[in-house]
Amino acid sequence: MLEKTTRMNYLYDFYQSLLTPKQRSYMSLYYLDDFSLGEIAEEYEVSRQAVYDNIKRTEAMLEEYEEKLLLFHKFQERNKLIANMKEMLKEGSPSAEALNVAVAELEKLD
Amino acid sequence: MLEKTTRMNYLYDFYQSLLTPKQRSYMSLYYLDDFSLGEIAEEYEVSRQAVYDNIKRTEAMLEEYEEKLLLFHKFQERNKLIANMKEMLKEGSPSAEALNVAVAELEKLD
Repeated sequence: MLEKTTRMNYLYDFYQSLLTPKQRSYMSLYYLDDFSLGEIAEEYEVSRQAVYDNIKRTEAMLEEYEEKLLLFHKFQERNKLIANMKEMLKEGSPSAEALNVAVAELEKLD
Repeated sequence: MLEKTTRMNYLYDFYQSLLTPKQRSYMSLYYLDDFSLGEIAEEYEVSRQAVYDNIKRTEAMLEEYEEKLLLFHKFQERNKLIANMKEMLKEGSPSAEALNVAVAELEKLD
């Protein structure tokens, strides 16, 4: 569950601009502010089932966007390369060749 | 017009996965293969006006996606930083500090 929460937080971060205001409200209460379905239902004066359905649909939409655009995936790949470069740069005299390889990999990701 | 074509080519590249198959067909014939509206209309046995309307709507959708997700904008920013790093790496003994700054900028873009 923690893994799913982390993933949803990232997907929400990348694709929230594509959601409706209501989807954004429910998702951020549920995933960022840790509200229960019941608490959200009370807040919006709707049934718990309605909140649940909306959140499930939104989760599916976020996964669909990720399948199409791969923003989270590319972010992770880019992060690995950047961490790598930082590591190289910490070691005093970085190898220009190794850095060039990392830069080329970064370029390919876009 | 050339500028618009270039921009649309990029936006199409980034967001084509969010379009319908018909939108993709019209856009790629018009923007990538340089077909005229009349030629596309003939190919699909629809009116020239229908093709025009579909392409205009798709262009607006692509601009809306860009407004929300900024993929093309970030791509350009990332490209500048990458070009910069390549330039530094060409100069024999690159400054670790300058490279660190560039890497930090890259990280901020995501």
